[in-house]
Amino acid sequence: METITQIISKEQLLNHWIGHRALTKRIIEKFPEEDFFEFSIGGMRTFSEIISELLAMEAPGLKAITERSPAPFCQEGCVFNTKAEYLTAWDKATEAIDYYWGALKEEDFNETFKLFGQYEFPVYQNIFYFIDNEIHHRGQGFVYLRALGIEPPFFWERY
Amino acid sequence: METITQIISKEQLLNHWIGHRALTKRIIEKFPEEDFFEFSIGGMRTFSEIISELLAMEAPGLKAITERSPAPFCQEGCVFNTKAEYLTAWDKATEAIDYYWGALKEEDFNETFKLFGQYEFPVYQNIFYFIDNEIHHRGQGFVYLRALGIEPPFFWERY
Repeated sequence: METITQIISKEQLLNHWIGHRALTKRIIEKFPEEDFFEFSIGGMRTFSEIISELLAMEAPGLKAITERSPAPFCQEGCVFNTKAEYLTAWDKATEAIDYYWGALKEEDFNETFKLFGQYEFPVYQNIFYFIDNEIHHRGQGFVYLRALGIEPPFFWERY
Repeated sequence: METITQIISKEQLLNHWIGHRALTKRIIEKFPEEDFFEFSIGGMRTFSEIISELLAMEAPGLKAITERSPAPFCQEGCVFNTKAEYLTAWDKATEAIDYYWGALKEEDFNETFKLFGQYEFPVYQNIFYFIDNEIHHRGQGFVYLRALGIEPPFFWERY
């Protein structure tokens, strides 16, 4: 037990993550239905394929961490045919993150865990990877929208 | 003073930030000289303009926080004519971040500060904004590289 003031509390980090998820949801909403599934640049994935990755990684990853489960990276149940289904899955994943967050203790963040049976890092690094990976790929979505002539939301619209 | 274990220590957060800066440096290096200053998609900024923004925001912002200075967002001294100059400025900014980080105390992160005389938030939120904003715009750089037919580094190359 350290007695130093926390630089960011567990609740603050959850709110930070959830705020980013709200912005990503706005980006999904901005895509025209067809472009969400078909538009890409330079051979990169479509934005629907990126969202499938985030759905397969974040909530299932957090669940696996809290259960210390060697569950592999989710391979199914994260691919849909309509934007509406993606948005529903996105909201469900946000609820799941909020739920499983409650099972994490402050002490857990510096424990080492082999995520998806592969990535052995301290838990805090896995959680920052989830958030950073979302920001990274969402940045790709911002470029796709601009290339489509669509004005993206502001980066600070996290509500 | 809280007695709860920290979920991420001050030193760990610095290493996280510095790791991201190492990856961004790799992206700068990957750009052909001319494209760094001229290539863009959908009317967005060139990658050199983005790097100028990051140079104007991160190290000057952290310095302002540690000095509780109302210094405005740096408007000059962050624009250069060659990639080599940008890379030198990037390394200097990383050194400055490392230096000023030492002046921050754990207690400071939840104090409210009006950054650049404008953005009044807890310090931890300003610092996460610096990091997230870099990840976000670097994601844009990844798309630019792919559109140019250049393979970007892996997202986890943070060394």
